[in-house]
Amino acid sequence: MIDCGEGTQMQLLRYKINWNKIEHIFISHLHGDHYLGLMGLLFTMNLNGRAKEINIYAQPDMMDIIELQLRVSSTELRYNIIFHPLQFFNSKILLDDAEIRVKTILLNHRIPTVGFHFTEKRVHRNLNLPVVESFHVPLSFYKNIKQGENYIDDTGNVVKNSELTMEPKPAHTYAYCSDTMYDEAIIDEIRNVNLLYHEATFMSDMEKRAHETFHSTAKQAAIIAKRANVERLLIGHFSSRYINLEPLLAEAQEVFPDTDLAMEGFTFVT
Amino acid sequence: MIDCGEGTQMQLLRYKINWNKIEHIFISHLHGDHYLGLMGLLFTMNLNGRAKEINIYAQPDMMDIIELQLRVSSTELRYNIIFHPLQFFNSKILLDDAEIRVKTILLNHRIPTVGFHFTEKRVHRNLNLPVVESFHVPLSFYKNIKQGENYIDDTGNVVKNSELTMEPKPAHTYAYCSDTMYDEAIIDEIRNVNLLYHEATFMSDMEKRAHETFHSTAKQAAIIAKRANVERLLIGHFSSRYINLEPLLAEAQEVFPDTDLAMEGFTFVT
Repeated sequence: MIDCGEGTQMQLLRYKINWNKIEHIFISHLHGDHYLGLMGLLFTMNLNGRAKEINIYAQPDMMDIIELQLRVSSTELRYNIIFHPLQFFNSKILLDDAEIRVKTILLNHRIPTVGFHFTEKRVHRNLNLPVVESFHVPLSFYKNIKQGENYIDDTGNVVKNSELTMEPKPAHTYAYCSDTMYDEAIIDEIRNVNLLYHEATFMSDMEKRAHETFHSTAKQAAIIAKRANVERLLIGHFSSRYINLEPLLAEAQEVFPDTDLAMEGFTFVT
Repeated sequence: MIDCGEGTQMQLLRYKINWNKIEHIFISHLHGDHYLGLMGLLFTMNLNGRAKEINIYAQPDMMDIIELQLRVSSTELRYNIIFHPLQFFNSKILLDDAEIRVKTILLNHRIPTVGFHFTEKRVHRNLNLPVVESFHVPLSFYKNIKQGENYIDDTGNVVKNSELTMEPKPAHTYAYCSDTMYDEAIIDEIRNVNLLYHEATFMSDMEKRAHETFHSTAKQAAIIAKRANVERLLIGHFSSRYINLEPLLAEAQEVFPDTDLAMEGFTFVT
């Protein structure tokens, strides 16, 4: 989970997302709209009997905020919090396991803030299903074949793995950059990602205000996307002054056509 | 405002309640479901330019929680918080002005917890509108007449206040008791109120569990209402195990018929 604003636990319920599956929570910075839902989620996980540890990556004060609130409510959690304090002077790998690598992106905001860069790892080859089925391979063999093994049938015939499988698609990469002013220093860190989320708090007519408040305009988000040669851009974190979001989208698309609005509850498949 | 759970600011928006009118926030105790929305509300009031001070009545740690989060987000509020630390050893008058008197009710919960007793003050007499209109009293005189003055028309005729007004209805009283185990000690503090909100986390078949967790059953809430001779009872704070709430209502109504379920978004007029 990336950031956890107020009401996240209600939204997880609403979109039927099982929060027991959440193992890592990445908090970009300690402005309320990015972390105020964390405490409630931690309390509710506890109330619902969570036993599995949870990893939280955040600015070190986040743990003080959690501990103070556990103490005043006399709560002893039944699960462990593994707290990973973020650094803000250089980008760092936070997590690197069999499935994913996550590293920070240094952003430029009013308080210490990072973005997150995710690289999915494809450790399995893809089955060439028509071929697999033509050899009547039992389902129970699929897992091993995906891992590169040959198939040997009852009569001893060997079917080579290269016949049964195909190269996996390239791993997905995703970069999340919120909140930040326009900063070309991030371009190298997010280059060529499949999907970039970049904040777009204002439109270009408020570029000065964007700069003063350490935020970006929709056009600036698109310029970053273009220069970083990303595949697709999602913009979000819009100021509440914008009731109609189409002009923000249009402004970004003028520079970077493959832009979408990050709307609540939407799923984007790359 | 009494208590401020996660998502309160969104609910205020949803029900079109102007939060600038909120001058006093009473927090019964520091379990998350009673205060986790406060920080977000304070941040948003600030973002929206609130200048008017706000009074917060809570356990002293609440101010530490607020100050820590203001500090880590480098936020300097544009309005003042007047913080009133609650005491938990005897009930105390928190507020006593021309319109209302508020005092605490000592509750019996796992951590220090109070309820709140509100007495509305009727300082104005009610206009007898048909009479007032028959004398062609200008609108600008209404306020003074409500305050007990006679009306003298252009020709010098005096109309006595007793002709123009009626006794005000008795002041409303409201007691809010959440969270608490069954405790007869509160009966004297809430006697004869027009409206009692009393928590009813469980049904009677879970009375033992209610006691262990310092909560009440629907039946116990009704017994308190009956013994305190209140006019009307609202029950709430139901365990999430109850999807259908009608059995809780039925259990309470068996002891105290004038009971309602405190449902989100409902208004109860006494």
